Amino acid sequence: MKALVMRGLHDVAVLERPIPVPGPNDAVVRTTVAMVCTSDCHTIEGGLGELKDRVLGHEAVGVIHALGSAVEGFRVGQRVAVNAITPCFKCENCQRGFTSQCKVMLGGYKFTTQKDGNMAEYFHVNDAESNLALIPDGVSDEAACYTTDMMSTGFKGAENARIPLGGSGVVFGMGPVGLMAIAGTRLLGAGLVIAVDCVPSRLELARYYGADVTINFKEQDPIAEIMRLTGGHGADAAMDALGSQPTFENCVKATRAGGVISNIGYFGHGDYIKIPRLEWGVGMGEKTITTLLCPGGSERMGRLMRLIEAGRVDPTRLTTHHFKFSEIEKALDMMTTKSDGIIKPVIHFD
Amino acid sequence: MKALVMRGLHDVAVLERPIPVPGPNDAVVRTTVAMVCTSDCHTIEGGLGELKDRVLGHEAVGVIHALGSAVEGFRVGQRVAVNAITPCFKCENCQRGFTSQCKVMLGGYKFTTQKDGNMAEYFHVNDAESNLALIPDGVSDEAACYTTDMMSTGFKGAENARIPLGGSGVVFGMGPVGLMAIAGTRLLGAGLVIAVDCVPSRLELARYYGADVTINFKEQDPIAEIMRLTGGHGADAAMDALGSQPTFENCVKATRAGGVISNIGYFGHGDYIKIPRLEWGVGMGEKTITTLLCPGGSERMGRLMRLIEAGRVDPTRLTTHHFKFSEIEKALDMMTTKSDGIIKPVIHFD
Amino acid sequence: MKALVMRGLHDVAVLERPIPVPGPNDAVVRTTVAMVCTSDCHTIEGGLGELKDRVLGHEAVGVIHALGSAVEGFRVGQRVAVNAITPCFKCENCQRGFTSQCKVMLGGYKFTTQKDGNMAEYFHVNDAESNLALIPDGVSDEAACYTTDMMSTGFKGAENARIPLGGSGVVFGMGPVGLMAIAGTRLLGAGLVIAVDCVPSRLELARYYGADVTINFKEQDPIAEIMRLTGGHGADAAMDALGSQPTFENCVKATRAGGVISNIGYFGHGDYIKIPRLEWGVGMGEKTITTLLCPGGSERMGRLMRLIEAGRVDPTRLTTHHFKFSEIEKALDMMTTKSDGIIKPVIHFD
Amino acid sequence: MKALVMRGLHDVAVLERPIPVPGPNDAVVRTTVAMVCTSDCHTIEGGLGELKDRVLGHEAVGVIHALGSAVEGFRVGQRVAVNAITPCFKCENCQRGFTSQCKVMLGGYKFTTQKDGNMAEYFHVNDAESNLALIPDGVSDEAACYTTDMMSTGFKGAENARIPLGGSGVVFGMGPVGLMAIAGTRLLGAGLVIAVDCVPSRLELARYYGADVTINFKEQDPIAEIMRLTGGHGADAAMDALGSQPTFENCVKATRAGGVISNIGYFGHGDYIKIPRLEWGVGMGEKTITTLLCPGGSERMGRLMRLIEAGRVDPTRLTTHHFKFSEIEKALDMMTTKSDGIIKPVIHFD
Repeated sequence: MKALVMRGLHDVAVLERPIPVPGPNDAVVRTTVAMVCTSDCHTIEGGLGELKDRVLGHEAVGVIHALGSAVEGFRVGQRVAVNAITPCFKCENCQRGFTSQCKVMLGGYKFTTQKDGNMAEYFHVNDAESNLALIPDGVSDEAACYTTDMMSTGFKGAENARIPLGGSGVVFGMGPVGLMAIAGTRLLGAGLVIAVDCVPSRLELARYYGADVTINFKEQDPIAEIMRLTGGHGADAAMDALGSQPTFENCVKATRAGGVISNIGYFGHGDYIKIPRLEWGVGMGEKTITTLLCPGGSERMGRLMRLIEAGRVDPTRLTTHHFKFSEIEKALDMMTTKSDGIIKPVIHFD
Repeated sequence: MKALVMRGLHDVAVLERPIPVPGPNDAVVRTTVAMVCTSDCHTIEGGLGELKDRVLGHEAVGVIHALGSAVEGFRVGQRVAVNAITPCFKCENCQRGFTSQCKVMLGGYKFTTQKDGNMAEYFHVNDAESNLALIPDGVSDEAACYTTDMMSTGFKGAENARIPLGGSGVVFGMGPVGLMAIAGTRLLGAGLVIAVDCVPSRLELARYYGADVTINFKEQDPIAEIMRLTGGHGADAAMDALGSQPTFENCVKATRAGGVISNIGYFGHGDYIKIPRLEWGVGMGEKTITTLLCPGGSERMGRLMRLIEAGRVDPTRLTTHHFKFSEIEKALDMMTTKSDGIIKPVIHFD
Repeated sequence: MKALVMRGLHDVAVLERPIPVPGPNDAVVRTTVAMVCTSDCHTIEGGLGELKDRVLGHEAVGVIHALGSAVEGFRVGQRVAVNAITPCFKCENCQRGFTSQCKVMLGGYKFTTQKDGNMAEYFHVNDAESNLALIPDGVSDEAACYTTDMMSTGFKGAENARIPLGGSGVVFGMGPVGLMAIAGTRLLGAGLVIAVDCVPSRLELARYYGADVTINFKEQDPIAEIMRLTGGHGADAAMDALGSQPTFENCVKATRAGGVISNIGYFGHGDYIKIPRLEWGVGMGEKTITTLLCPGGSERMGRLMRLIEAGRVDPTRLTTHHFKFSEIEKALDMMTTKSDGIIKPVIHFD
Repeated sequence: MKALVMRGLHDVAVLERPIPVPGPNDAVVRTTVAMVCTSDCHTIEGGLGELKDRVLGHEAVGVIHALGSAVEGFRVGQRVAVNAITPCFKCENCQRGFTSQCKVMLGGYKFTTQKDGNMAEYFHVNDAESNLALIPDGVSDEAACYTTDMMSTGFKGAENARIPLGGSGVVFGMGPVGLMAIAGTRLLGAGLVIAVDCVPSRLELARYYGADVTINFKEQDPIAEIMRLTGGHGADAAMDALGSQPTFENCVKATRAGGVISNIGYFGHGDYIKIPRLEWGVGMGEKTITTLLCPGGSERMGRLMRLIEAGRVDPTRLTTHHFKFSEIEKALDMMTTKSDGIIKPVIHFD
């Protein structure tokens, strides 16, 4: 089979690899649609260290090609989505409910980091009974593929925000995850949804996904505007979908006493992330800071796909570009440089 | 009446003041017992800005002296405890359940910051129906006075920690609040309670209040030891009862993926409190950071006093010194310098 | 002023009464719009015992006419909505967060049961600072009036249901509260919303408010259909918006293991409500049963009105009839007999 | 191997059976200590239908005898406890967190109901990685065996009760599960723990396990006494550890508005369990009813054993009798008739 392989830092190529073979609890899926994630670009640049000869990718759907001897409830040929995070669902952390922290912190993230990823014609799925999610007839492969990371991650940001019905929420950073955080915040009943970015087309998409107000931080001071919109209190919750010191800091500043700072982003640099002391109520303002790593598992995936099927959200509006798998390197380049207004490129395996 | 007045920075004296008069929803209490808090020392040094002619103090109990015309359910002469935090219980933040953030962030803290405190022979209580808590016959004034801040604050730290039954919790800083966090962690069912400090007598008291293990950080690396005690995972929760960069940072490091960093302390310095990036799981380790400000209100006070009455906890073991009100300045000096092994001095108004 | 007075069982009349006078913490509101509730009909028939000379009504909005001396933050002339439930926000139950159970069980319900109601030209509001909710300019009196009971009650049913994002919820009984439970379930992110009733026009309205599927129980077995729609598991939650043995029982049967039965209705008859043993998992199926009484308070009312203002929900689609206050007895008759397809009649005070 | 076999209704015998063989994810344990549960007696009488040739028992600990090919993290010879409930941890219900409802309602209960039980010299453990819990050196087999059902079940009753720190809880029925509910309620920080039964020796044991007050319902009206003890409000939570109409009904009556009725018992008879309407607040008193089935899994078992190891609770005080496995039928008889003050008999396999 063909697979996108990271041979070393800044060095990727499509290479021939053997089709994986499932162990007793595993499955192998033939890929139909995959997506490039900005974190793939980070990985190539060394975000996970100097990986060698590792297949990349963690967002893919396809058709069951082979099943392990102990796997029940599935059959070859079924359409399935597999979350970027594939926990064992057995270990202590999984039993505690923190499946993304499987065995160790961040340990649920296995594609690319612990084993080959799924930007390949076939891919291996550990603990298949819990990690294979059937795709309903009414949901396209492309739409389903968004549940493997963008929707699950962005929506979890909104779930962690715990905004009361009719309350207010702000999302900083209108990349695909931030846009899904907007959609999730709206779906969960917020009465005032605010999007902050500096790219007009992304802010427009934020309105499509449910933002009541958009703030272009190059034109307005977002904190002053959020305070104005919330009667001087701040929002019930603020979500950082970027993972940067300025956006994190703005989340603390934008949140009211007793509110939630729901971090969604990956912090890739520096020794520390800094909490502004005064706006954090000198450590006594009852502002809660939460974090997440894309939650996986077939049960959640099923609910996310139901939301698509029922017309609650259409994630395919995030798709800006389509490529064949043979064009994958071009897609990676564009995702790295964010050229041509790219938000999310879909990779088709025919 | 006589009252301890802050005339300006570093300038306090016992002065004569008029006995307060209650408005329709207020009460006035004749003080029997009060306590000096380390934060009184911070206040004198300018922690709340340059207060002038303000009565200090926020930990006191006494006897109802006068009641406002609209106050129901109480009568003059009853023994009552009044929490350091006296919310209105009416405003939006109070209705949201964040009574310590009454009206504005930290706004429930009214003694000293918004009006005269209660280190005086009489003191004023706003919103008396919710803020007067009857002291049961079986609870001494001294014991009851601990519910006004030390117990309520320390226990809330343990409540925020949300340690599962039989789980593990660490408290950094064995001052009186940290010791009460130890007691609260034990009371709430943790199976492994760890206390960290560097003063042997305080660590001994931590054992009395329920610590299974004590770590003297001058003798051992607390993080290495906590990791060893928790099978390499870290604790379910870590509490910072000091409010300093090193202890906060240790809380993040000491906590397992999915755990809780429950801040209890007041951060008095600097622009930022810094979260160590890697141990925070690069923003994805599902470690939650919570904060608090001593929760008030008669309902909670009643439960805290029941715990004393039922023998679950004896906070008076925190008392190291007794003074008459006329000796208050000496008590303040000792609390500032932490001399003679002082933990908590009790001030008696006879 | 004119007021609708219950003189005794089955005996109501519009009579002249003195305009109420506020105590220090109270307000008096001049009514602009009110609504008849089915529970008013129950009251007339003796549901609250044999009330004599009591003004009826608990759903009304208006303009501040007078304010008590201790009330801050409001001024005469402001448009306000007042919830059917007007807690004191001071007592032990209120401090515990159960404001509808103010002082005693159901004690937050004061209009009609503990004092005169508000189907009158003016009405009295206790604890005004917490119970007066400003109506935004963009919200009509009629729409705001729905937040005083129908929306607050129905939405709370959906909140108690705690359906996970994309999960499934069923509501039995498409009266106005049940329809608002449908709207709330949809607003809170359910992926499958099912409405059960036997009146086609109400089921049609259920679709308008967000039901994906409607079941006419005269044409289909609702339990069999719900099981079919949920893959044989049952729904994540079922809400009883009627308060009858058959609907309650169906809620238990319609709910999956680990699900929630969220009761919204008032049970007016019999010594017992019966839980079907087998479908309740012989007491071990982890099905949780919750109940509620319309939550009040200005903070919640503000959030409900924001949902109207932001276009999330338009409760006025529940309005089937309009009457002048002088026609109130006709409105009551129609509400009692449910004639002419009446769902909710609006009473206008000009 | 020898095993206690139910040949049919009211017909049990110790018979020779083959030692089980593990599948890839399973383990086989050599039993060292087991316990008879009252539900074994119910099973023999037909509680699970007319089982034929089924090995009984669900409370046992032992030593790993064999491991499946895919099981990691364990080795033959280790001392292990296995909960009565052995979920797959893979299915939709398990992923939702309702592991005791594995696949279907009550489906986590596999011993006896879905496969042979463990009152035998060896027993089979499905999904071994999640269901084998290592017994620490400081915990005896006898003590560990209590975590397999009595402690996990009783403590979960107390966890579901969600009593606030210093609040009040009542447990009805001082069998071994009820006594563990008392211990759990105390461990979780209640300030007033009330035990209700009619057997003086059991009430005495309740005091040992942490009850502040015991009520012999043959001597006192328990509801009147609970009301007196709680200032007329009722308790924050009431637990039914028996599973009978009178105790369930008393739980509803004993609970304050906004409180929790935490059912722990198994309801074996009748079509309905009845909720008393008035004391349930006519369906609006915000009293929540929860249920449970003994939660399993190695993570929880580890925490329960830590509580034993740390001296928080000594479950072996429940042991009233010891038997060799060859005397198992005598133990069953005594458990059925509850003769000789039996609470819990321990069965030793030497």
